[in-house]
Amino acid sequence: MSAARPPPLAGVTVVDLSQIYNGPYATFLLAQAGANVIKVEPLTGEHLRRRSAVGGAALPFAMLNANKSPVTLNLKSERGRELLLQMAMRADVLVENFAPGVMDRLGLGWEQLRAANPRLIYASSSGFGSSGPNRDFPAMDLTVQAMSGVMSVTGFEDRPPVKAGPALCDFFAGTHLYGAITTALYEREKTKTGRRVEVSMQEAVYPSLASNLGLYFSSGGKVPLRTGNRHGGLAESPYNVYPTADGWIAILCAGEEQWRALTRVMGRPELAQDPRFVELATRVKHLDEVDAAVTAFTRTQGKGRLFEILAGAHIPCAPVRDLEEVVNDVHLHQRGFLQWIDHPVLGRIVVPNSPLRFMDTPLTPHVPSKKLGADNRNVYGEWLGLPPEVISELEKQGVISGMEQ
Amino acid sequence: MSAARPPPLAGVTVVDLSQIYNGPYATFLLAQAGANVIKVEPLTGEHLRRRSAVGGAALPFAMLNANKSPVTLNLKSERGRELLLQMAMRADVLVENFAPGVMDRLGLGWEQLRAANPRLIYASSSGFGSSGPNRDFPAMDLTVQAMSGVMSVTGFEDRPPVKAGPALCDFFAGTHLYGAITTALYEREKTKTGRRVEVSMQEAVYPSLASNLGLYFSSGGKVPLRTGNRHGGLAESPYNVYPTADGWIAILCAGEEQWRALTRVMGRPELAQDPRFVELATRVKHLDEVDAAVTAFTRTQGKGRLFEILAGAHIPCAPVRDLEEVVNDVHLHQRGFLQWIDHPVLGRIVVPNSPLRFMDTPLTPHVPSKKLGADNRNVYGEWLGLPPEVISELEKQGVISGMEQ
Repeated sequence: MSAARPPPLAGVTVVDLSQIYNGPYATFLLAQAGANVIKVEPLTGEHLRRRSAVGGAALPFAMLNANKSPVTLNLKSERGRELLLQMAMRADVLVENFAPGVMDRLGLGWEQLRAANPRLIYASSSGFGSSGPNRDFPAMDLTVQAMSGVMSVTGFEDRPPVKAGPALCDFFAGTHLYGAITTALYEREKTKTGRRVEVSMQEAVYPSLASNLGLYFSSGGKVPLRTGNRHGGLAESPYNVYPTADGWIAILCAGEEQWRALTRVMGRPELAQDPRFVELATRVKHLDEVDAAVTAFTRTQGKGRLFEILAGAHIPCAPVRDLEEVVNDVHLHQRGFLQWIDHPVLGRIVVPNSPLRFMDTPLTPHVPSKKLGADNRNVYGEWLGLPPEVISELEKQGVISGMEQ
Repeated sequence: MSAARPPPLAGVTVVDLSQIYNGPYATFLLAQAGANVIKVEPLTGEHLRRRSAVGGAALPFAMLNANKSPVTLNLKSERGRELLLQMAMRADVLVENFAPGVMDRLGLGWEQLRAANPRLIYASSSGFGSSGPNRDFPAMDLTVQAMSGVMSVTGFEDRPPVKAGPALCDFFAGTHLYGAITTALYEREKTKTGRRVEVSMQEAVYPSLASNLGLYFSSGGKVPLRTGNRHGGLAESPYNVYPTADGWIAILCAGEEQWRALTRVMGRPELAQDPRFVELATRVKHLDEVDAAVTAFTRTQGKGRLFEILAGAHIPCAPVRDLEEVVNDVHLHQRGFLQWIDHPVLGRIVVPNSPLRFMDTPLTPHVPSKKLGADNRNVYGEWLGLPPEVISELEKQGVISGMEQ
C-alpha cells in the first residue's frame, strides 16, 4: 500500500550512561525507533552485564541491549570525563539514571553539559526525582513498589501485601523517560534548544493506581483492602479468576447481557432469574455464591476450551498463562513482536521488538547485545575522530579498556 | 537560573476519541505537556464518565481528563462523521482505542484520514494490536494481565495466581502510545508527513517481565513459580517484606556489605559469621532462617522508625505504604506532583501532575475535568468556524448535544 519508510529516529545520537532496567529500557525504545545508542559502561561493565554472567540476568541484558553500541569509559579519570564531555557535544541526547547528584559531582551535570552543547537533551531518571525530601532514598523496584502503594493493593486480603511480579516501577519510569526525550526532540526542532527532562519511578507508577485511588476517595477515605482477583471495589460480579481442569481462567461480566450469556453457556439460565443473581446490585451481595456457581462450571473443562466457548459468547475472559505459553504465543510471533534468535553467547532465546509500532516502517532487525567495549574503536575512532595511537594510549592508561574477549 | 520556557507541545492539537484509561492516559500526558486536547465523546459521554456518576470511577475520570476540552459528537450520524473528518483535517494527532476495525467501519480509518490530511498522526491502541490471530480477543486490564503472564508470577506459591493491583496493562499501553505519538511528531518536523502508530496492551507489558523471563530461560525452561515477596529467582537473601509493630517493611541486601550492616543494626553481628549466613550462597539455602532472624528484629519496632534506622545504614528498604499515606506524601506534594484541588463536582481531591518533568517550564496548572460537551461552542464555533445557527441545528439534529447542565 505504501512504500517503506525509514525509522522515525534515524539520525539521532544518544549517549547512554544508564544501568539495569529503567534508563536502558528508554534507550532500548530509542534504538528500536532508529536512534544510534552509544552505551557507555564502566570498565567492569554495567551492573546488569556483570550480573548476567550467571543466571537470570542474562536474558534481560540481551533483551534491553540489542541494537546498541557498547563502549567502555572510566569516568573516575579526568581524561574519561573529558571524553564524555566531547561525546555530549556531538550527541543529541544523554541519558543517565544514577542517584541524584552523582553527575553533578562528576562535573557532568546539566549546567556543565548544556554550556558545552545547548542543543543537548539531558534525561535523568531516579527513584524519587532530583528534588524533595525523599530524593536520596534508596530506590529499587521492590522498595518503590512498597513506597508507592502498589503492594498495599496487590494480593489476597488474608495474606500480607505482595509485590506485583513484573518490575513495573522500573519499566514505567523507562517508558515515561522515552516519552520525555522524544517530546524534547520534537520541541528542539522548533526552538533549536535542548532541555533537561526527568522522571521519578514513584511518580511514573502513581497514575496506574487510578482505580484504587478512586475507591479510596469514593469510600470517604476508607483505605481499600486487597481483594485478590475480585474487583477492587467489590462492585462487579462475576469478576474473578476461576479454577479450571488444567489451570485458571479470568472472567468478568460487564453488564447484565454478558451475565445472562454466561448463565446460558453454563447451562444454567435459571440463575439469571434467581433473586440473588438477577442484577448486579444483588450479585455483589452474594459474591461467594456467584463465584461458586461459576466455579462449578469452569472446573469441568480446560482453560483453552473454556476460553473458546466464552469468547465465542462475547464474555470477557482469558486463560491465565504461564511464561512458557507467553514466549510461544503464536500471535506475538506472527506480529513480529517476539522472535527466536541465536544469540552469540546465550544461544536460542526469544527477544521482543519495541511495543511502539510505526506502521509503514519495517520492524527494526534485531542486532544482538554485544560484548563489553565492542564498539570502542568505532565510536572513539570513527565518531569522535581519535587517531588509533590515542586510542591505544587511552587503553593503556585505563581510560577505556580493550574489548571483552 | 533560566527563564521560564513554554511547554514543549504548545501549538499541537489532538482529537481524542479514546475511552477509560489507555488512550486517555496518553492524551493526559499530551495535555500536561501543553497540547490542546479535544476530547470527543458520544452524546451519552465516554464509558468512564458514565461510570463516574457513582463511586470509584469519579476520581480516575477527574485525574485523566484534566486540561482537556470535552465535546460531544454522534459518530453514528453521517453529519457527525463529516464533522470528525473536518476536525481531523485541522488536527495534528488523532487518538483512538476502539476495538480494531471500528474506525474503518465508520469510514474514519487511517487510509481515509491520511487522504484528507497527510500530516495527521493517527494513533491507535488495543488489547492485542490490529493484526494477528488474537486481534479480536476481548481486552480489559484483567484479561490482559491473565494472557500476558503477569498473574502467573504475582502472589504466593501456595495460593492462586493474582492480579497486580494497579491497572498496569492499560497504563503501560497509554504511556507507550504517548511515546509513539511524540516520536511521530518529531519525525514530522523532518518529513512533513504524518504516520499511523499503534500499541498493543499485551506487548506494552511484556518487557516489564524481564526478570521473570530471565529466570524462565536460565532455568532451562522451568517456569518460575510465584515467590511472594521473595526474589523471583530465590537468589537474594535477605529479600522480602517483613512484619513490623505497625505494618510491613520491604528490605533487601544487595551484597555482603549491606548484610553485615544489617546484622549490626539488628544487634546481631554474630550472624554474619554463622556458616549458614556467612555468604549469599549459603543464605539462599537457609531462606527461612534468614527471614526469621530479620523478622525477630523488625517485629520490635514501627515501620517508620525501622525505615529511618535502616536507610541511615544504607540498607535498601521501604515501608509498605497504604493509599492514605501515598496521597498525603509530603515529598510528592513538595515536588508539585500531587496537589489538593477543589473540584467543581467532586470537592476536595488529590490529583497528579504528569510524571514527565520538563525542567525550566513551570508545571502545567490543573484545569479540572469539565462537564460533557462543555467546549462544544468553543470547538465547533471558534476552532471549526461553524456559525451559531449551524451549531444550534446540529444540536437539534442530535449530531452534537447541548452541554450537560
